[in-house]
Amino acid sequence: MQLIGPFIQILPLTDMPIRGPLGERHLRIMEHGGLLVAAGRVVDVGGYQDMKAQYPDAELHFIDTPQVLLPGFIDCHTHICFSGTRSRDYSMRIEGQSYLDIARAGGGIWSSVTQTRAASQEELAALVVQRANRHLQEGVTTIEVKSGYGLNAAQELKMLRAIRDAGVHTKASLVSTCLAAHLVPKDFEGDEKAYLEWIIADLLPQVQQERLSNRVDIFIEQTAFSPAAAMPFLEAAASLGFDLTVHADQFTAGSAQLAVAVHARSADHLEASDDAAIRALGGADTVAVVLPGASLGLGMQYAPARRLLDAGAILAIASDWNPGSAPMGDLLMQAAVLSAAEKLSAAEVLAGLTIRAAHALGLEDRGVLRYGWFADMQSYPCADYRDILYYQGKMKPQHVWKEGILVK
Amino acid sequence: MQLIGPFIQILPLTDMPIRGPLGERHLRIMEHGGLLVAAGRVVDVGGYQDMKAQYPDAELHFIDTPQVLLPGFIDCHTHICFSGTRSRDYSMRIEGQSYLDIARAGGGIWSSVTQTRAASQEELAALVVQRANRHLQEGVTTIEVKSGYGLNAAQELKMLRAIRDAGVHTKASLVSTCLAAHLVPKDFEGDEKAYLEWIIADLLPQVQQERLSNRVDIFIEQTAFSPAAAMPFLEAAASLGFDLTVHADQFTAGSAQLAVAVHARSADHLEASDDAAIRALGGADTVAVVLPGASLGLGMQYAPARRLLDAGAILAIASDWNPGSAPMGDLLMQAAVLSAAEKLSAAEVLAGLTIRAAHALGLEDRGVLRYGWFADMQSYPCADYRDILYYQGKMKPQHVWKEGILVK
Ligand SMILES: [Zn+2]
Ligand SMILES: [Zn+2]
Repeated sequence: MQLIGPFIQILPLTDMPIRGPLGERHLRIMEHGGLLVAAGRVVDVGGYQDMKAQYPDAELHFIDTPQVLLPGFIDCHTHICFSGTRSRDYSMRIEGQSYLDIARAGGGIWSSVTQTRAASQEELAALVVQRANRHLQEGVTTIEVKSGYGLNAAQELKMLRAIRDAGVHTKASLVSTCLAAHLVPKDFEGDEKAYLEWIIADLLPQVQQERLSNRVDIFIEQTAFSPAAAMPFLEAAASLGFDLTVHADQFTAGSAQLAVAVHARSADHLEASDDAAIRALGGADTVAVVLPGASLGLGMQYAPARRLLDAGAILAIASDWNPGSAPMGDLLMQAAVLSAAEKLSAAEVLAGLTIRAAHALGLEDRGVLRYGWFADMQSYPCADYRDILYYQGKMKPQHVWKEGILVK
Repeated sequence: MQLIGPFIQILPLTDMPIRGPLGERHLRIMEHGGLLVAAGRVVDVGGYQDMKAQYPDAELHFIDTPQVLLPGFIDCHTHICFSGTRSRDYSMRIEGQSYLDIARAGGGIWSSVTQTRAASQEELAALVVQRANRHLQEGVTTIEVKSGYGLNAAQELKMLRAIRDAGVHTKASLVSTCLAAHLVPKDFEGDEKAYLEWIIADLLPQVQQERLSNRVDIFIEQTAFSPAAAMPFLEAAASLGFDLTVHADQFTAGSAQLAVAVHARSADHLEASDDAAIRALGGADTVAVVLPGASLGLGMQYAPARRLLDAGAILAIASDWNPGSAPMGDLLMQAAVLSAAEKLSAAEVLAGLTIRAAHALGLEDRGVLRYGWFADMQSYPCADYRDILYYQGKMKPQHVWKEGILVK
């Protein structure tokens, strides 16, 4: 048993409503607290002096500078399994060409497919480890990673195996998602239905057999898959036993409701969501995942995060870290910038980066500092939790723990 | 003499038009180049192998990994001479209160005045050095720094002396500006005219006598100074021999034209600039300085950078690093995010961070890599200059040189 502390403030983030608006009173800040860890789990959180008396045998990890302790962040939407860059696309885009223009011109996602197909499983795994470790150093202890730059059996399986292999070589937890339905590949051009049926009939059974992922994602958009084709695909994936998530409403409204209808764990993007989408997500158990990094990367509007919360949605914030639209990959910075633009309180942002993001991944063992849950934590070199968002990502955690083990 | 190289690409940024739109063709990229430095100045830029043959006596600084060389960035608008944080203001703001609300409630700039007045000259100088050095590590080799949290003779002079002292202890060049006209101080409440007259009659002569600054700034805004009071103040400061700059059009349009009328070196902010302001700046020698960090910090719209360029303006990009509205202080990140939103080409962004920013400060010895100009430079660990903006600030320079001396 290890007693870690004292911290000027601990924000255990327990007992926050899972949905809707939050304010400072929901944070239940503990001052001069300590945290007891055993076997990677939280055993107790309380006043440091009291705990020292109560657990005299605990090994002490003494914190000798002012620090604020939070649960580790959970990034519930990334595409960090890729090779190459898309800096040419970015350059075209800042010169005024649209994402859709670039995609139609043969750039866009297809260019990452080509570069990722050319990489070996080992090379990809090493790239995932490198990016996951960078995230971990910035306080992100659980990271969802999607396939989707393979788009055929061998290449999608290679990606998912690379993500599995990477999970062994980074201390961050990786959660993999099969996004074979990222784009209609050239072999199936003009026949999205046939491609989606192939995923259901051939690919997903192999994914299950190798236990590579229990999550399926699809990009519903004019340049990707239609809602009409997505609906039976998602239903079939669910009946195979997969959890669902959807790239919804990025440029065109209409798919968020579909995500709700199929009981997806999350509907992600939502930059183009309209009133009907906000209403649907406001009453659903489907988490509304907003991706400010994509807005910053593409130079487009943010998802209506404030209105989603006010409608009662479960709002999570993720990085969308990917080589095309979100190459920055700084989750805290993106969340802070979003909070200033959308007027999200610190409690709403922190919930969106922890417990609400865990809900999007179906994880009930992390995201708050509570008895029996994982001791995934990060501490910031300040005396007031408000400083963390204030510096808009330039203040990084001083220490990070994954399952009780200090990794920074 | 020192020969530095080879670099995969050198972007000397010479021969770019000082005003209006720019594209890739203006960059005149040199491939496999080297740079010859003597006595802190650029002596020659050319093909590395040619230069090795031409200057056989030069000491070699061999660059053994792929890197792209740029001039150092020039941040022509900061307020990094301050003590304390304003994270409480930030927290109020993300909960939905406006900048003006917070100012009227006694927070805002006045809270930084109180905290900065309480700091000694030595403490302030140390804080400026720390922030300037952080900037320098991120490739910013020249930094403008304003006073303006003193607001009486002793305190404004203390700030300007602290900036002068800091300049001795950092390798970055500091350019100081007297912003006593940041806010009407409590002693002069309701009498902006009397305060501005005091600055002209009492403060500026002392500033000149101690040679603390040759630049004067004023914040024209509903919560600060009126255009009617600002005009005679700026004219009087000019006739004392000061260069002028103006905080213009941040929340309310109308002051950019005033900056042009008094031949200010720059009009800064411009988030609220209207068509008339854009037209005025489009034809003026007054640099239009946009401050995306303030937009990100306040969660408000960006200045119309694209329209300013298209109108022919000299557009510079600065950080506005300050404890209230722009606490992040990451110039490259802010410029990259702005470029995605406003569709600024890489050439426009790089000019705005170098030669056009130098113009705002009246400096004709830095901002391009040209014979006789300062060897203020930075190199990025990539093989294509487009990667620099693509990573939106997460890729930092590997090396930084100030007047030819390696500082990172
Ligand atoms: Zn995505
Ligand atoms: Zn300013």
